[in-house]
Amino acid sequence: MGLLERLDAGEVVIGDGGFVFELEKRGYVKAGPWTPEVCLEHPEVVRGLHREFLRAGSDVMQTFTFYASDDKLCNRGNEAGVKFTCRQVNDAACRLAHEVAAEGDALVAGGISQTPSYLSGLGKKATQAEFKKQVDVFVENKVDFLIAEYFEHVEEMEWAIESLASSGLPVCATMCIGPEGDLHGVSAGQCAVRMARAGAHAVGVNCHFDPFVSLEAVRLMKEALAEAGLKAHLMAQPLAIWTPDTKKQGFIDQPEFPFALEPRIMTRWEIQKYARQAYELGVRYIGGCCMFQAYHIRAVAEELREERGKLPAAHQKHELWGGGLLLHTKPWVRARASREYWSRLSPATGRPYSAALSRPAGWGVTAGHQELLQHKEPTTQHELDAVNDKFKEAEA
Amino acid sequence: MGLLERLDAGEVVIGDGGFVFELEKRGYVKAGPWTPEVCLEHPEVVRGLHREFLRAGSDVMQTFTFYASDDKLCNRGNEAGVKFTCRQVNDAACRLAHEVAAEGDALVAGGISQTPSYLSGLGKKATQAEFKKQVDVFVENKVDFLIAEYFEHVEEMEWAIESLASSGLPVCATMCIGPEGDLHGVSAGQCAVRMARAGAHAVGVNCHFDPFVSLEAVRLMKEALAEAGLKAHLMAQPLAIWTPDTKKQGFIDQPEFPFALEPRIMTRWEIQKYARQAYELGVRYIGGCCMFQAYHIRAVAEELREERGKLPAAHQKHELWGGGLLLHTKPWVRARASREYWSRLSPATGRPYSAALSRPAGWGVTAGHQELLQHKEPTTQHELDAVNDKFKEAEA
Amino acid sequence: MGLLERLDAGEVVIGDGGFVFELEKRGYVKAGPWTPEVCLEHPEVVRGLHREFLRAGSDVMQTFTFYASDDKLCNRGNEAGVKFTCRQVNDAACRLAHEVAAEGDALVAGGISQTPSYLSGLGKKATQAEFKKQVDVFVENKVDFLIAEYFEHVEEMEWAIESLASSGLPVCATMCIGPEGDLHGVSAGQCAVRMARAGAHAVGVNCHFDPFVSLEAVRLMKEALAEAGLKAHLMAQPLAIWTPDTKKQGFIDQPEFPFALEPRIMTRWEIQKYARQAYELGVRYIGGCCMFQAYHIRAVAEELREERGKLPAAHQKHELWGGGLLLHTKPWVRARASREYWSRLSPATGRPYSAALSRPAGWGVTAGHQELLQHKEPTTQHELDAVNDKFKEAEA
Amino acid sequence: MGLLERLDAGEVVIGDGGFVFELEKRGYVKAGPWTPEVCLEHPEVVRGLHREFLRAGSDVMQTFTFYASDDKLCNRGNEAGVKFTCRQVNDAACRLAHEVAAEGDALVAGGISQTPSYLSGLGKKATQAEFKKQVDVFVENKVDFLIAEYFEHVEEMEWAIESLASSGLPVCATMCIGPEGDLHGVSAGQCAVRMARAGAHAVGVNCHFDPFVSLEAVRLMKEALAEAGLKAHLMAQPLAIWTPDTKKQGFIDQPEFPFALEPRIMTRWEIQKYARQAYELGVRYIGGCCMFQAYHIRAVAEELREERGKLPAAHQKHELWGGGLLLHTKPWVRARASREYWSRLSPATGRPYSAALSRPAGWGVTAGHQELLQHKEPTTQHELDAVNDKFKEAEA
Repeated sequence: MGLLERLDAGEVVIGDGGFVFELEKRGYVKAGPWTPEVCLEHPEVVRGLHREFLRAGSDVMQTFTFYASDDKLCNRGNEAGVKFTCRQVNDAACRLAHEVAAEGDALVAGGISQTPSYLSGLGKKATQAEFKKQVDVFVENKVDFLIAEYFEHVEEMEWAIESLASSGLPVCATMCIGPEGDLHGVSAGQCAVRMARAGAHAVGVNCHFDPFVSLEAVRLMKEALAEAGLKAHLMAQPLAIWTPDTKKQGFIDQPEFPFALEPRIMTRWEIQKYARQAYELGVRYIGGCCMFQAYHIRAVAEELREERGKLPAAHQKHELWGGGLLLHTKPWVRARASREYWSRLSPATGRPYSAALSRPAGWGVTAGHQELLQHKEPTTQHELDAVNDKFKEAEA
Repeated sequence: MGLLERLDAGEVVIGDGGFVFELEKRGYVKAGPWTPEVCLEHPEVVRGLHREFLRAGSDVMQTFTFYASDDKLCNRGNEAGVKFTCRQVNDAACRLAHEVAAEGDALVAGGISQTPSYLSGLGKKATQAEFKKQVDVFVENKVDFLIAEYFEHVEEMEWAIESLASSGLPVCATMCIGPEGDLHGVSAGQCAVRMARAGAHAVGVNCHFDPFVSLEAVRLMKEALAEAGLKAHLMAQPLAIWTPDTKKQGFIDQPEFPFALEPRIMTRWEIQKYARQAYELGVRYIGGCCMFQAYHIRAVAEELREERGKLPAAHQKHELWGGGLLLHTKPWVRARASREYWSRLSPATGRPYSAALSRPAGWGVTAGHQELLQHKEPTTQHELDAVNDKFKEAEA
Repeated sequence: MGLLERLDAGEVVIGDGGFVFELEKRGYVKAGPWTPEVCLEHPEVVRGLHREFLRAGSDVMQTFTFYASDDKLCNRGNEAGVKFTCRQVNDAACRLAHEVAAEGDALVAGGISQTPSYLSGLGKKATQAEFKKQVDVFVENKVDFLIAEYFEHVEEMEWAIESLASSGLPVCATMCIGPEGDLHGVSAGQCAVRMARAGAHAVGVNCHFDPFVSLEAVRLMKEALAEAGLKAHLMAQPLAIWTPDTKKQGFIDQPEFPFALEPRIMTRWEIQKYARQAYELGVRYIGGCCMFQAYHIRAVAEELREERGKLPAAHQKHELWGGGLLLHTKPWVRARASREYWSRLSPATGRPYSAALSRPAGWGVTAGHQELLQHKEPTTQHELDAVNDKFKEAEA
Repeated sequence: MGLLERLDAGEVVIGDGGFVFELEKRGYVKAGPWTPEVCLEHPEVVRGLHREFLRAGSDVMQTFTFYASDDKLCNRGNEAGVKFTCRQVNDAACRLAHEVAAEGDALVAGGISQTPSYLSGLGKKATQAEFKKQVDVFVENKVDFLIAEYFEHVEEMEWAIESLASSGLPVCATMCIGPEGDLHGVSAGQCAVRMARAGAHAVGVNCHFDPFVSLEAVRLMKEALAEAGLKAHLMAQPLAIWTPDTKKQGFIDQPEFPFALEPRIMTRWEIQKYARQAYELGVRYIGGCCMFQAYHIRAVAEELREERGKLPAAHQKHELWGGGLLLHTKPWVRARASREYWSRLSPATGRPYSAALSRPAGWGVTAGHQELLQHKEPTTQHELDAVNDKFKEAEA
C-alpha cells in the first residue's frame, strides 16, 4: 500500500528520525552548512542509519537530501558544491533509501527543503528551478512520495508544493514553525490552509520545536483546516529535545544551538507520551527530526503497538518499559523494570550549575532582509565583524 | 609503535568511546544484560562504530567484548548464551577491531570485565577460568595489548590482571570506581597500588563517574603510586555524562539509570575541559566509556592537537570551536563561531520540571551477599517481589 | 495633596507592602482564614509594620482590614468573629493607620476585599451589606480614600465599587487577576473597563501574580481603557514572589501555597526592575502585596528616586546598589558594592533537589459552585474526606 | 532554672533567631557594617523582634550586641561609632532583652563576636580589651549567661572565652565554621576541644552554613570531645538558608551574599527536620542565626513539643502541619492541611533562569593578611580599585 492508501485507511505511518545532527556527531556532516554529501562520501554510513530507523519501526525511508539544492551546496564557501552536484547527491540518496527500504516494508520519500535562493529574495522562478532539479531525480528514481519540509515561510512552501505536485506523486508538507506561525507573520492555521490549497495531501510541522509545542501548532492547523472545510492528513516530525523557551524561530535561536543542546535530549518515555498525544490529536504520520534517534522512533512504535498491531525488529533488544532490566545483576536496578517506575520518574539534570531556561537570540529579520542575503564566497571578515558587533549589542 | 612505546615516550594515546549505550540506542544491544552478541548478529554495525571512533581520533580499537564471558552471556535467562559461546563472540569482535584498525594507525586491545562468577562468590579458580577463555582468543587473534576494565572489586581485578599478564602482552587495568574506592572499602589509592603490583602497566578508572569525578580518583591513585614508589601509566575512560550526585557505586545507582540519563550528556566543550585536565594530571591514555560518542572523542583529539601534532579525519567535518557555523544562513548563529562563545556558555537544561540532582539508590550490598547471587534461570517472580518490596521500603 | 491630586499631577504614589504573610511569619496572623484581628490583639505590631513601610517610602498607609468583613471573620469556625466584630476590627485598623500616617506625609486608605457571601452566591444585596459595614467605619474615621482590592470576579468588584463610591471618596480598584482575566471568564481588559465604568478612579491588579505577570495584565487593561475611551489611573500591587508557572487563579493554586513559597521571594534588585517597568508602562500607584516587605518598598523608592525627587527615611540604612558593603571586612565582599554587580547577578537557588516550576492545582470551580459554599461551622470531616479524595484523584 | 540547670537536666533550650538580616530588611540595620545601633535609635523595633521570638518559643533573649565592640562600631567610616559608644549600645541592648524576657520564662544572654582588632593582627591584649568593655556591661546588667559567637578563628575564640569566663557566668561558644574547620586550618573537632578546654560550658556552631551542614560540623565536634574525654553541651544556631555550595568560609563567599539570598530561605518544614536531627544528635541548645525568623523558631518548638511538653504562644496562630488551612475558602487548598502533604512536598523554585548552585568567591586570605587590615577611615578609592582588579581576575 502507498502512503495515501495507508493514511486514508487510518493507519499510523511512522516516519524516520533525524540525520544531520546524528551524522554530525558521528563525524560525517558539518554543522553550519548541514549538507548531505555523506551520501557520496560514505554511503555505508547513510545506509546504516536508514537501517537503524527501519529496524526501529519507520515505515518511511526518507532520502537524505536535506539542504541538497545546488544553491545550498555552494553557499558561503561550502565545499560540498565544489565536489558534488545536486543531481549526484540526490541520486545517491535515492539509491541508499531504496536499498534499505527493500529490506522491509518501507516506502521511499524524496525530500526537499528551503533554499538560500528564497532567503536572498531571488523570487519564485529561481527558487523553483532549484526544487525542480531535485524533483527530477526523485521521479527518475521512482520514489513513492515527496516531502517538502523545513520551510520557515509559507510562500516558499507554496512554491515547493507546486513543484512537487507537478510530479503527480503524493505530497507531504511540513513547516518548521510553532504555534506562532511562519516568519512572515502568517498564523499556523493559515499556513495549513495554504499548504492544503497548494496541493499537499498531508500537512504539519517538522523540526525547530519540541514534540509538545509542535503538537500545539498542529492542533491550530487542524482547527483551521476544519474551519476552512479542507481535508488533509496531519503530520508531525518534531525535535527530540525540549524547547519550552523558544520564540517564533525555534531552537535555532537558543544560545545552545547547535553544540550545547545535550541536556534537552528527550528520554524514550517522553517520546512515548508524544506518540500517544499525537495519535489522540489525529496525527497519523508520526516521525521525528533533529536529535530523534532510532531508540526514539522505537519508542513511538512501542507506544502505538496495539494501534499498529506489531512491534519493530529492534524490539528484540528492548522489552517494553525497560523489562530487560530484569537481567541486571543488581537487584535495585531490576526493580526499575516497570512502566510505573519510568512513567513516574522526573529525571534529574545532573547540572547544578545550569538554569532551566535560556533566552533566545534572533534579530527579527528574515527573508528579504539585507542581512540574510546569501552568497557563494565564504563569510567575509567584514560581515563577521558586523555580526559580532550586533551580537554584543544584543547581549548588553 | 606499541602501546608501551607510545606511553613511555610520553605520547598521548586516545582510547575509544562507549559501545553498549550507543548500540543500545541504535537497536543492537539490550539494556540489562548489556552483552555484545551484536558482533555476530550485525558485524557491520560494530565495524561502523569502530570506524567512527577511528575517524574521531582513537588510537585504540578495543574489541567489543564487554561482558562477553560465558557466565555473563548465560546469566538470568540471557539468550545470548544460548545462541553463542564466549569464544565465538570474542573471536568475531577481534576480527572486527582488526579490520578497522588496519584502516588507520590504530592498536587493537582485547578487553575483559567483571564476572557474575565473582559476584556470586565462586572464587578465584572459577573466575579465572572465565577470563582465560577470553584471553586465549585474544592471543590467537594477535591483539596488541589487553585491558581489564569495569571491575568494582580490586580482588577480582588482581585475579584478572594475573590472567591477562600470563599472555605476555601489555596490560591496562581500570576500575569503575570513584574517589571513595572499591565496593569492599579499599581506597582508590590502594586499588592503584594493588593493580600495579599485580602487573598492570597502566592503571586508572573507567565508567561509573563523570570525567571530573573520575580524574579526582586518578589523582588519588597517582599520589598513592608515588608514595609506594611504583611506576605505572595513568589511564582514564570515564562516562560522558555528569554525575555530581553519585555515591560509591556511581551512575548505576542513580534513579535515571539507564533510561533517563539524557539530560546529563556532556557537550563537546565539556569534554575538551576533561581532556585538558586529564593531560595536566599526567594521564596519557585518555578515552571514554558509556555515552562517550565519536564527537566526544573528536573533542579530546581537538583539545590535544598540539600535543599530538595532528587532527583526526573527522575534523574535516568540524572546524575548531564551531568554526563551521560561519557557513550558517542566520547571522546571529554565525556569531557563535568562536572559542569565546562556547567556552563561556553555561547551557540551559530546557527542563523546568526537573531538579538538578537525584538521590542514589543502592542497598549497600555487594560481592558475596546473598542478594547478588547470579543464576542461569530468569529472575523469578519471587525474587522480583522481594526486590520490589525492598525498593518501596527504601523509597518511603 | 490628596490621592487624585497627586496622580493627576503625574506624581508617583508608592503603596505599601503585604501584611498577612508578614504578620503570619511574625506569629500574629493565622494562615487559612488570614483575618486581621491582630489590630485589636497586638496593635503595636500593626503599628510597627505600618512604620516600616512609611520609613521605606510608602505614601499610603492602608488600613489592615483585609478580609475584615463579618462573614469572613466568622467563616468555617474562625474564632476572630467570636471575639470581635467587623466594626471593632476596622475601627482599630483605621486608628493605627492614622497614627503612623501622621508621622510622615502619608495618606490613609480604607480597604475592602472579596467576601464569602459572594462566593456562596448570596447575591448583591447581602454582599453589599457586608461592604457597607466597613465603609461606614472608614467614613467615620475620615480616611483619605478607599481601595477595593483582591477581587476574583468583576461582578463582585462592581458591587464593591458602587458601595465605596457612595462615600464620595476617591476609589481605587484592583483585582487579583492576571492576563487571563477573572474567574468567570471576563478578560483583563474588560475588567478594567467595567471597573472604570463602575466609578473607580484608579484601576489595576493586586496579589496573585508576580510583578511582571501583573504588569502584563495592567498593559491589557491600559489598552482596553484606551480603546473604550475611558480615563483611569493605573495601579499595581503585585506579589513579591516569582510566579512564572501559574494559571488563572495565581499563586493560590501552586502546590507551595502558602507554606513553601520561600524560594520564589524576590530580591530587591528584581523589585527595582518591576518599579522601572511599572513606571514606563504608565502605572503611577506602585505598591506591593503578599511577601512585599519593607525592603522591597524601599527598592521601589530607590529606583524612582529621581522621578520622586527624594529618598525615604530607611535609606539611611541602605546605600544605593549595596554601597554599604564598602564597610565590609572582607575585600571580596566590598567588591560587590556596585550596580554592575547586582544588576547582572542571576542568583543561584541553593536548591539542587528542587525543580524550577510546579504544576498548579485548582479544580476549575468558582463562585456559585456547590463546592465553594461557605458556612460558619468548621469544615466537617465529611467535607474534608471529599476534598482529599478529589485531591488524590487530581494527583494520580 | 538557669541555663546549665536546664541543659544538665537534658531539657531542650530554644535559642532565638537572627537580628541583623531581619532588621536590615525592616530598614533599621545597614548591611556591610551590620552594627546594632538600632538598640538606641529605635528601641521599640528591637523589643518587637525579641517579642516575636519569645512568642515563637525562644527560651533565651540574646542581647542584640552583635559586632557591638568599639573597634567595629568605628570600622571603615561606620557612623555608628561616631554617635554611640560600645557601652551605650550594649547597655541599651541588655535593657531591651530583660524587658521582653520578663514577659515570659526566658533567660537573658549577653553576646560578643569576633573583632576587627583580631583580624588586623593587634594581638590578644588589644582584642580582649574590646571584649572586656562588653562583658562589664553584661555583668552590670545581670544577664543570665554569656555567648561568644561568630568566631572564624579558634585562637580569638579562646581569648573571648577567657574574657567571658572571668565573669563567673556560664559561657556558650559557637564558631561560624563548618565541617572544614576554622580559617586557620584547625579542624572542627579540635575547635570544640579547644573551646571546651578554654572554659566553655556549651560549644557548637552558629551562622555561615545551613542547618544540615552545621550539624555535620557539630557531629565532628561531638566525636572529638568524646575522644578527648571532655564534657560540654552541644549547641547549634545555623542559618535558615540552604548552603550546599559553600566552602570553608560559608555563605559570605557566595556571590549572592548578602542581597540575593532569597531563593535559599528555608521553609518551616525544612526547619522542623533540622530540629529533629539536632535533637537526635544530642544538641540541646537549638536556635538559629541569620534569616531565622520567628516562624522558623516556632517550627523548632512545634517539632519538639513532646520533648518540651508545651507549645509556644504564637502557636495560637498556627495549627500543626498547616491545620489552619482547613479554614481556607478553596477546597483544594484545604486539602493541604496535613503533615503528609507538607513533609513530602519538594518546593519548586519559581526561577527557571537560575542555576541551583553558585561558585564561592573568597581569596584564601584571613587574619594576619595585609588585605584584611581594618581601619577607621572609609575604604579608599585606591583600596577599592585594587579589590575590583583582583575580583575581575578571579572572575576571568
